[in-house]
Amino acid sequence: MISFAGGYPASDLFDTDGLQAAAAQAWQVSTRCLQYGPTDGLPELKTQLLALMARRGVTCTAEEMLVTTGSQQGLDLLLRILLAPGDTAVTEQPAYPATLQALRLQQANIVTVPVDGDGIDVGVLAARLDSGAIARPKLLYTVPTFANPTGATLTRERRLALLRLAVQYRFVIVEDDPYGDLRFAGAAVPSMLALASEVEGARDWVVHFSSLSKVVAPGLRVGWTIAPPEIARRCVIAKQTVDLCSTPWTQAIAARYLAAGSLERHLPRIAQAYRGKCEALCDGLRAQFGDAIAFHQPEGGMFVWARIPGVAIDALLPNAIASKVIFVPGKAFFADNADPASLRLSFAAPNVDEIREGVARLQHATHATRTTRKASAASVSA
Amino acid sequence: MISFAGGYPASDLFDTDGLQAAAAQAWQVSTRCLQYGPTDGLPELKTQLLALMARRGVTCTAEEMLVTTGSQQGLDLLLRILLAPGDTAVTEQPAYPATLQALRLQQANIVTVPVDGDGIDVGVLAARLDSGAIARPKLLYTVPTFANPTGATLTRERRLALLRLAVQYRFVIVEDDPYGDLRFAGAAVPSMLALASEVEGARDWVVHFSSLSKVVAPGLRVGWTIAPPEIARRCVIAKQTVDLCSTPWTQAIAARYLAAGSLERHLPRIAQAYRGKCEALCDGLRAQFGDAIAFHQPEGGMFVWARIPGVAIDALLPNAIASKVIFVPGKAFFADNADPASLRLSFAAPNVDEIREGVARLQHATHATRTTRKASAASVSA
Repeated sequence: MISFAGGYPASDLFDTDGLQAAAAQAWQVSTRCLQYGPTDGLPELKTQLLALMARRGVTCTAEEMLVTTGSQQGLDLLLRILLAPGDTAVTEQPAYPATLQALRLQQANIVTVPVDGDGIDVGVLAARLDSGAIARPKLLYTVPTFANPTGATLTRERRLALLRLAVQYRFVIVEDDPYGDLRFAGAAVPSMLALASEVEGARDWVVHFSSLSKVVAPGLRVGWTIAPPEIARRCVIAKQTVDLCSTPWTQAIAARYLAAGSLERHLPRIAQAYRGKCEALCDGLRAQFGDAIAFHQPEGGMFVWARIPGVAIDALLPNAIASKVIFVPGKAFFADNADPASLRLSFAAPNVDEIREGVARLQHATHATRTTRKASAASVSA
Repeated sequence: MISFAGGYPASDLFDTDGLQAAAAQAWQVSTRCLQYGPTDGLPELKTQLLALMARRGVTCTAEEMLVTTGSQQGLDLLLRILLAPGDTAVTEQPAYPATLQALRLQQANIVTVPVDGDGIDVGVLAARLDSGAIARPKLLYTVPTFANPTGATLTRERRLALLRLAVQYRFVIVEDDPYGDLRFAGAAVPSMLALASEVEGARDWVVHFSSLSKVVAPGLRVGWTIAPPEIARRCVIAKQTVDLCSTPWTQAIAARYLAAGSLERHLPRIAQAYRGKCEALCDGLRAQFGDAIAFHQPEGGMFVWARIPGVAIDALLPNAIASKVIFVPGKAFFADNADPASLRLSFAAPNVDEIREGVARLQHATHATRTTRKASAASVSA
């Protein structure tokens, strides 16, 4: 089975040497990491993460940051302190399913705004806010850079417009940024948090999540939240009740890994590998499908979002599995009005040869799906 | 400053050699622990935890178990799936403050039942249930063995009576058992979960939490929940949204540590050390305070709960800090009607010499508090 389905980073690109060295060093420095740690994160890790954020163009303080069990926990904590049942939360559509699930768990009123190749359609959002069609949103969740599932990156202009809307309509922009460092083409766009300094008052309305899961390893479970101090403080209080602290041992390892400069050294290897994989996937799709498939080639991240017009992806999936290739049907990413012709293809885990073969199998399965459909249409009309 | 305040285990009793060996082995076996893991826990860890529970007299299946970020997360997940706002939750009083906080976060109606030297007063509970004074409780939270803060252990007879009440009144017994293996005196009492097999239908009403935090190291953040399969399944679904999985790296280390038999080898060293510390504390209290203090000497765990009749602990605390000794005032552990003369003393972290000196300082501070009180009473009457 060749899998385009996973949302996992490539295991064979983990920097095992760097992590092993960091693990040994963390232990030599102190076995303090065996004890409970501060709820907001180990100070030595926060120092490294603040430096990492500074390299990404964000100046912030330790009081604005908390370390979480992956950025997933950051979202859970934020929603728990911010959302009351029935509060309106805006998401891009299609969106990361775990976010939709987290919003449902908080009984949010989920309102969706469509995404195109340039990210969430801020013009549509502005019109709906102006008309009152979206009333008093509490927050807007977005993955503005190399989104899951679309791979799209929000343009700088849209980011600035979105920041202005947040200030005007007083909602929190929840920026989830696990993939931003995985750029392998095009010019970098600053994060919403970095750009917030260009829009008066906007910094008060941005909560930023990031994570080492996609650039170092998920097995550390190290994510972090940057939020206005009062929101950060309330997240820390909630975290005291939720799990006291994220794993101090792997926090200490992450701190040593970052302090050693290993992330900067290793990141280009991951980005280069992902570029090759992404090109293999996109070149393969163009070669095998021609005009029968539509997609935007992403400039980073792990995902290609595609449409195969006229093909019901629900019917394609079993044929694909029979051909030993798998993907995630697009409908998993919709809160409502799912696009039945859409699918998400992740290029992160398979190697280039597997990707080429996987695309050929997908084409074969698509052909089989079309043929079956025509045959059953013919039998119905007969 | 000598601290009796901490709820942390003794750092100098961590089995650093055993953990270092386990960490090296976990890595040699596979770097799979760098990837995301199953939400319910790494299979190799669950296998070891099932074996550990079997040694504790509990037979259960993998479907009934999930690994959590400390047992604290187990409680948070359970309350989220089980409690609606306004639902009644019964706790022992005094109780672990983070539990009270978690119940408040879920907007529970908290009802308390008093604890004596034999644990929660099941007779009082039964009378209140029978009279309808406690109506339709959803759950009862208890630390039945070496409780935090009281150090008390619920008798076997009370455990069986409590299990029968749970079946009769259809509430979930939430058994938190982080300290059970830290017995250094007296005869072992089976956990509520182990005893549930002796009361028809009771197994369906027991959720059990345990943890490696107090017997191995908190820095692993490895806890686990054992629950009826449907409750366990719902906790796993909630955990997918909350943090996807607890840290796979330290789960893998914990699995190797347990597989190597290191816990059984090391545990007697911790228990022996805690026995010496507990005796030093209790002997010191008797020698320094005589009849002026009341406490039950615990048979395990980390805590001594004491009362100094006629002394306002709020007034004692600043004097104690001035004498360079600290503890937790008892009122922190009450949901209502706090006992102003109570305090919690933890003997886990300080060494025996520090404990003796700390008790002398506490006596000194108590004397100063009484003297000041008499002096100000005299000055008022003058």
